Amino acid sequence: MTTPVTGDQLILGEASRTGDETFNALDPHTGDALPRAFAQTTPDDIERAVVAASDAFVAMAARDDSDRADLLDSIADALQEKAEQIIDAVMRETALPRGRATGELVRTAEQFRAFATVLRQGWHRDALVDPHAADALPIARPDVRRMNVPVGPVVVFGASNFPLAFSTPGTDTSSALAAGCPVVVKGHPSHPETSELCGRAIQDALRRHDFPAGCFSLLQSTHNEIGAALVEHPLVAAVGFTGSEAGGRALFDLANRRPSPIPVYAEMGSVNPLLVTAAALEKRGHQIAEGLANSFLFCSGQYCTKPGLVLVPSGDAGDEFVSLLARAVRAHEASPLLAPNVAAAFDRSIERIRETVGSENVVCGTTSRRGLERPAVLVTSSAADLEAHADILTEHFGPLSIVVRYRSTANLLAVLQKVPGSLTATLHAEPEDQGLVAALLPVLTGKAGRLLWNGYPTGVSVTGAMMHGGPYPASTFPAHTSVGWTAIRRFMRPVTFQDFPDELLPTALRSDNPLGSPRLVDGQLSNAPA
Amino acid sequence: MTTPVTGDQLILGEASRTGDETFNALDPHTGDALPRAFAQTTPDDIERAVVAASDAFVAMAARDDSDRADLLDSIADALQEKAEQIIDAVMRETALPRGRATGELVRTAEQFRAFATVLRQGWHRDALVDPHAADALPIARPDVRRMNVPVGPVVVFGASNFPLAFSTPGTDTSSALAAGCPVVVKGHPSHPETSELCGRAIQDALRRHDFPAGCFSLLQSTHNEIGAALVEHPLVAAVGFTGSEAGGRALFDLANRRPSPIPVYAEMGSVNPLLVTAAALEKRGHQIAEGLANSFLFCSGQYCTKPGLVLVPSGDAGDEFVSLLARAVRAHEASPLLAPNVAAAFDRSIERIRETVGSENVVCGTTSRRGLERPAVLVTSSAADLEAHADILTEHFGPLSIVVRYRSTANLLAVLQKVPGSLTATLHAEPEDQGLVAALLPVLTGKAGRLLWNGYPTGVSVTGAMMHGGPYPASTFPAHTSVGWTAIRRFMRPVTFQDFPDELLPTALRSDNPLGSPRLVDGQLSNAPA
Repeated sequence: MTTPVTGDQLILGEASRTGDETFNALDPHTGDALPRAFAQTTPDDIERAVVAASDAFVAMAARDDSDRADLLDSIADALQEKAEQIIDAVMRETALPRGRATGELVRTAEQFRAFATVLRQGWHRDALVDPHAADALPIARPDVRRMNVPVGPVVVFGASNFPLAFSTPGTDTSSALAAGCPVVVKGHPSHPETSELCGRAIQDALRRHDFPAGCFSLLQSTHNEIGAALVEHPLVAAVGFTGSEAGGRALFDLANRRPSPIPVYAEMGSVNPLLVTAAALEKRGHQIAEGLANSFLFCSGQYCTKPGLVLVPSGDAGDEFVSLLARAVRAHEASPLLAPNVAAAFDRSIERIRETVGSENVVCGTTSRRGLERPAVLVTSSAADLEAHADILTEHFGPLSIVVRYRSTANLLAVLQKVPGSLTATLHAEPEDQGLVAALLPVLTGKAGRLLWNGYPTGVSVTGAMMHGGPYPASTFPAHTSVGWTAIRRFMRPVTFQDFPDELLPTALRSDNPLGSPRLVDGQLSNAPA
Repeated sequence: MTTPVTGDQLILGEASRTGDETFNALDPHTGDALPRAFAQTTPDDIERAVVAASDAFVAMAARDDSDRADLLDSIADALQEKAEQIIDAVMRETALPRGRATGELVRTAEQFRAFATVLRQGWHRDALVDPHAADALPIARPDVRRMNVPVGPVVVFGASNFPLAFSTPGTDTSSALAAGCPVVVKGHPSHPETSELCGRAIQDALRRHDFPAGCFSLLQSTHNEIGAALVEHPLVAAVGFTGSEAGGRALFDLANRRPSPIPVYAEMGSVNPLLVTAAALEKRGHQIAEGLANSFLFCSGQYCTKPGLVLVPSGDAGDEFVSLLARAVRAHEASPLLAPNVAAAFDRSIERIRETVGSENVVCGTTSRRGLERPAVLVTSSAADLEAHADILTEHFGPLSIVVRYRSTANLLAVLQKVPGSLTATLHAEPEDQGLVAALLPVLTGKAGRLLWNGYPTGVSVTGAMMHGGPYPASTFPAHTSVGWTAIRRFMRPVTFQDFPDELLPTALRSDNPLGSPRLVDGQLSNAPA
């Protein structure tokens, strides 16, 4: 059954249109407008969507976790039922290959199912129970019980590079709904059809499970002011964002200037350094070059975890490694970037790098430059040169990586100190590198949210122990992740109940623990009554 | 053995002085300067203290949790060994009674010991282990292991109202040291001798346990620019603050404007509404009036959890309740406020309230107004009047509470909607109030970090399940607490290790789990190998 796409906003369970202005997404292959027009969000749409979310909040928060788990499973099913139509829209709007679109849809559905599992296991509540203790110092302790509650309406900004997993039905949305927060999505304007299809799947599931229609809205727009107005709306409690450093920082600044500041959980730019030791180069040079080329060129390098800085020893083995990478770059079949602003930023990156390190140190692949197609690029530099040009150590979104040659550990550490906070840092090393690795680990730990050993940072595993975030500018809140199930913590806050009668406590805190919820009781973990 | 007090900064394990300017604290009883002069911090002191903290960070983070636990126990012992001298200084500098100072010292020492226990139990690591899974969707899962690591150097601002528990040796310091973060304390200028004594105890313990001397510094100053320079220093990773909304917000704004923003965990102003239902009034009116008067008048109401707004039904029983409170206020023996700025702000509060609600609605106790002594104050208003004057619904630090009379549930809810985010909200109700309580709980949950049943919010229990924080302006990060052992989370961030060889993993993540650390392994809690 085909889902209709009307180009309207999705508000209060319905498709709605209050203005005349429209926009069209572009076909990245040709650069031409796609045929379908989408209505631009109006201030009236914003007000209705946010008020609806606020009105829905108490009813949504009051639903049992098991109800919300069922809702999430239903959304996953609905997305997979519409898979064919969604994947077609993704490919049309983003030029991502079918395999990637299909994998991303599975991942996105599984994220909903994983959060449903979390809700059923109950860890998200972070429940702590400290019963009355007459002998506590300096005064007797009352009965104190604490658990997480949802924060309120959440605004989610979709990203262009993951039209599903980090967009309308992405982790920000699934984790916020799991937490019990109504969601208003500002869809990314490069894939409005994909967003509408997914938004309708979420609306359907809410209806099926009798959740208030205000629990989800989708607003589509090409205007930055719409995003700003959402972040500044006094009824909004938190924001999830994935995108550029400039965009994330602008929203973060707006949110911090509110009379009541709110957190903008922005996952932004990341350099993702990857280090190769001399021993690793000797033992696995060819293999690493191949793996690395795949990692930074796959889907035109449009991953926030793309290895954008590669540290390789100077010398013959390193020279050969670099020529292997250069060969891969020249042989790379160019494909279109996601959106005109992505292509324009990429062009600016190349221009700036050419000016900084000299054109002779820039290798470009071939391309027809048709539509948004751009060449793959490899930049080479010495550690000494790079120290002088550390401003190019920033995210260059697209199929580009900078290889820096180092002569010594001191050299290596000096470059690493200049690397901004990153999502990932990768080490390719061998057992005999133990001393070097011991010197590097504290530095890398301070720089990144995820450290990889002999691997490649793209292809983020969606699992509980994943950390997808890092010191600024990788993310605005390095204590939080936007991938994996602890992402739910962004949208919850603890509340303590002191000396409450059992029947008035939230179910998960009651003495008989009817949900068998995992709780820390006086510092000891227990699923038992307390 | 008496500890010398030299009035110097404590930096790198030593007492140090680089400038000529000094300041003196005041005797709150007389308003006169106390005899001892303390050196004002210079920019050079800041640079030395912060660089020392940054230099100490890697070595400190590398120490085993059990070493840090021993350090914390030693600090607790050292504080208690110096108890007599510290308590004398507290009383001289703050005019707080001996019982309160003694209790606070015990609490402060116990906080260090509690964090030591946390470190030995291992919950602070929040360890998650997801071993390799070939069948994960959409792609195979690598071995992913995650745990919390310290964020880096932490700046702590001492508060005036808790010269120990929220000041130099307070929870911000103990939790940051527990996390593995070096600490630079900006001592509160109203109790510099207390700060120096406690700072020396911490220095001694660091020395005894061979921790780098840069792990702790104490800087003393009366100048706001010193605090600003600390928050803006690029090597500082996080800030803990307890104090006024204006002060906390100023630091929060500075930190957010940094090129790399950092979190300022500020615990600020709180109204702490307390509701009395008609049924509770009838059954326990006298008792509640007595408990409430004690709660808001004890130590001149200089608690962030002081009940500053009391909602009482209109009618005869309510009238009697109010006259009991008024009698307590008139009979209250005035005592000095903590510091000149506290007294000045209190005078402004009374002035503003008189202008707003009319002097006829303000009851004042008697006072000599000697030194910083100020009268207790009770303000009365109807719900309807208060709605028009909602701007007085803010923290009035000192012995003042506003009683608002309500005629209906709608009345009550309308006032509550105007209450800003608070640390606490208290309900005095009876079993027959179930319907009313059910209507109130979602509203109160949205307003406060801690809900109390038939109790009083002052006298915060220091325990794992405590939540001392709340929606803005109660705190800047309502997901975090500044009391209780989860306060350590403010100073840690997760790092994921992907496919690391076992011998290079942090001990707590190794397959054989040699620490018996509590870990979530594939979503199941376990202390076993994995």
